[in-house]
Amino acid sequence: MAASPDTSLCPFCNESVRTAIFFETPKFLAIYNIAPVLPGHSLVISRAHHSSLLSLTEQEMNELFSNARTVLRILMKAFHTDAFDWSLQEKPEAGQTIEHLHLHIVPRVKNDFDSPGHWYPLVHRNDDEIIDSADRPRLHPDELRIIVEKLKETYIQLNLK
Amino acid sequence: MAASPDTSLCPFCNESVRTAIFFETPKFLAIYNIAPVLPGHSLVISRAHHSSLLSLTEQEMNELFSNARTVLRILMKAFHTDAFDWSLQEKPEAGQTIEHLHLHIVPRVKNDFDSPGHWYPLVHRNDDEIIDSADRPRLHPDELRIIVEKLKETYIQLNLK
Repeated sequence: MAASPDTSLCPFCNESVRTAIFFETPKFLAIYNIAPVLPGHSLVISRAHHSSLLSLTEQEMNELFSNARTVLRILMKAFHTDAFDWSLQEKPEAGQTIEHLHLHIVPRVKNDFDSPGHWYPLVHRNDDEIIDSADRPRLHPDELRIIVEKLKETYIQLNLK
Repeated sequence: MAASPDTSLCPFCNESVRTAIFFETPKFLAIYNIAPVLPGHSLVISRAHHSSLLSLTEQEMNELFSNARTVLRILMKAFHTDAFDWSLQEKPEAGQTIEHLHLHIVPRVKNDFDSPGHWYPLVHRNDDEIIDSADRPRLHPDELRIIVEKLKETYIQLNLK
């Protein structure tokens, strides 16, 4: 029998993540990144501590990406763009630093970086620091609260099924 | 009524893409990148010229990501790793250069780049050049054929439903 993973140190299993949630379903959550690489940078994560996309059932896969597309619509409306990057890494070799399934969604606007590809190396630095680091610019809790409220309202305004 | 997009210049709508296909379903294809940023770098594309993930039906979304996970399993087995990056860009602001829906899957191994994030800026340069450029190292047609055959065999060996 496989040992249960030790999730006590997983930032996405930590209660503190709750203040960043702006969309949730029984199995998935969307959280605003408290140290976003660009405005709107959010994560869709599994509620359970899945370490791999391959461990999801087909039904869970469908829910993950259906939910992710809803989150995308929220972010596109709230951040006034139709451009985005969508990215998922697995294993440290690929740049994953938190071993809990998460999909990055980053709204993009013209000239937000010198080159469109520049956001990505920042994501790798970013993962480690979503909860723990004082090195990166982080949102103040009041800023986070306002953004999360705005995104919740945006979801309601979208009036999806 | 929306005008049909002009697909005559789309490399993913071009017949020449057929030699790179190693997995296909009625609506989606997996192709090996003829100028891979790392060994195994492949693309899952829609057969029809969708320019946005948002234009897919829920059923098509499910198929896309279910197929993508099958392609992932093929690549993990053929390239002997369980690490990967999975990425999708939409609109030029996000680094998309070919406006035909495509998901990058890149198998990763330890120390393939100095930093795990370095593959990503290469993807942006890569898109333009999958078909057209003589600047990047490209596979010889015989190399491509051998890899494509290997990946087709790998799919059979996986013995998925």
